Amino acid sequence: MLYPIELAAVTASAIYGVLLGLRKGFDAVGLATVAMAVAFGGGTLRDLLLDRRPLFWVENEHFLWIVLALALIGATLPHRLTAIERRLALPDALGLGLFSVAGAAYAVQADMPLLTSALMGVITGAFGGVIGDVICNETPSLFRPSPLHATCALVGALAYILLDRSGCPQGLAQTAGILLASTSRMLAIRFNICLPARQAPASEEEGG
Amino acid sequence: MLYPIELAAVTASAIYGVLLGLRKGFDAVGLATVAMAVAFGGGTLRDLLLDRRPLFWVENEHFLWIVLALALIGATLPHRLTAIERRLALPDALGLGLFSVAGAAYAVQADMPLLTSALMGVITGAFGGVIGDVICNETPSLFRPSPLHATCALVGALAYILLDRSGCPQGLAQTAGILLASTSRMLAIRFNICLPARQAPASEEEGG
Amino acid sequence: MLYPIELAAVTASAIYGVLLGLRKGFDAVGLATVAMAVAFGGGTLRDLLLDRRPLFWVENEHFLWIVLALALIGATLPHRLTAIERRLALPDALGLGLFSVAGAAYAVQADMPLLTSALMGVITGAFGGVIGDVICNETPSLFRPSPLHATCALVGALAYILLDRSGCPQGLAQTAGILLASTSRMLAIRFNICLPARQAPASEEEGG
Repeated sequence: MLYPIELAAVTASAIYGVLLGLRKGFDAVGLATVAMAVAFGGGTLRDLLLDRRPLFWVENEHFLWIVLALALIGATLPHRLTAIERRLALPDALGLGLFSVAGAAYAVQADMPLLTSALMGVITGAFGGVIGDVICNETPSLFRPSPLHATCALVGALAYILLDRSGCPQGLAQTAGILLASTSRMLAIRFNICLPARQAPASEEEGG
Repeated sequence: MLYPIELAAVTASAIYGVLLGLRKGFDAVGLATVAMAVAFGGGTLRDLLLDRRPLFWVENEHFLWIVLALALIGATLPHRLTAIERRLALPDALGLGLFSVAGAAYAVQADMPLLTSALMGVITGAFGGVIGDVICNETPSLFRPSPLHATCALVGALAYILLDRSGCPQGLAQTAGILLASTSRMLAIRFNICLPARQAPASEEEGG
Repeated sequence: MLYPIELAAVTASAIYGVLLGLRKGFDAVGLATVAMAVAFGGGTLRDLLLDRRPLFWVENEHFLWIVLALALIGATLPHRLTAIERRLALPDALGLGLFSVAGAAYAVQADMPLLTSALMGVITGAFGGVIGDVICNETPSLFRPSPLHATCALVGALAYILLDRSGCPQGLAQTAGILLASTSRMLAIRFNICLPARQAPASEEEGG
């Protein structure tokens, strides 16, 4: 039932991961590693936490082939780095939205309560990107000086869960959650929408 | 049986996580993430390693609400950063002591041998803080130029296990382990007690 | 059946981890942590992904004693840091080769398909080293400007799986896979063999 969503989520996330790695000049193995980490990281953590086996990418082995093929294409096709920057937003937002709804749906299937289900959606949607950032040595965009990220996953996952609970048909609830999460992420990037935060005084920060 | 210990451990660790995040100027989502990472990280890793489901914070969903409420309080209440520094030590030490005994107790329940049980205690007690440090971009305090941390968790976990094996009542063995770990951590911070280490010659270090 | 391979893998990896930590000037707890992370990290992740319990180092508790003993020896024996650098390559390569074949063998036993089995080999062989690098605050050697690492694990794991599938006796298939992975890793370090990568223009890198 969740197969088409996961297929799209894996594809979008792998493209995002390959673009991240290309920006850093990674070789083919590095690209494949980032792409796998971004595309499989969140769902794997969710599967471990929910004790779901086989893992979603073991159950669908062709997901692995898709990610490796995209990494190979990224390693061989010519590209301009300036063009990558502008192309990161869409696969990022799609992966976030698709994975957060898929994650919430698995948690609902496993009879998790509301807040835990929403959190599983956030973990599934946002964790892959965080690992990608860590691998690429950037401060995870989950944290302060960056547009809304986990918040979008939370909004999408909550919308899906509440619509599902109120008797809305699966397909509609899923579509609404995905659109809400992905669109809000796109808007947050476009207009640089951040949560309010107190600035840490420079004198108290160490390591920058 | 371990419920009151875990409740106190989650609360203390979440407070520590919120303070860590405030020091870095994180927004509400960042604060919630650090607080969840510190409060749930060690116990989740232990549950995964011991194959315990539901996870301790899924079994007690209100733990999640407590952590989120503390993060929200941290994000809204006014505070002075200089006061945070001095308030980090107590919740850190309490979380370490409570979680290391709880972790060791779960491992003993699962019939793990001595050393493995002690290690589970150390992982449960110390891992959350390590994740918090990694998220906040600091060199994990587990390592060199910092007061005893994992060592305190080890001492407390070992004390609990040995007292429990020698027929001491649960409550007494737990209290002794918690006090030993938390007090030694407080003392280590207060008097800056570190393990001896060879200084790595500056000329051989890379990346500082 | 895999016991002697894992025993050797744990020993080699723990030595590598202790040397890594000594180079950083870690104290005894730090050395034990790095050694455990390098020796147990990859296999633990594999066991979690394959849902194998007890974990390989819980099943064989003396693995833990071996690692701790090596950390203690490292913390007490006198050594020269200049000598460490030259001694890192052999335990690194042996650990990589032994663990990648052991990881692939467990995956084959669990009826995983070809690509997933090979990936489990790579994860088991390479992940410990990556964690070690992260703990020691170095850019993981898995990534760009470094000799082949995951690639060697992949070659060894694939060789083992294909030989095993073609009816080759276990011992022979294992030996061939281990030799292939370890030797190629030694050669990659010795002659600085890297995969081709596009250089990321300096102007587009942030954070160095």
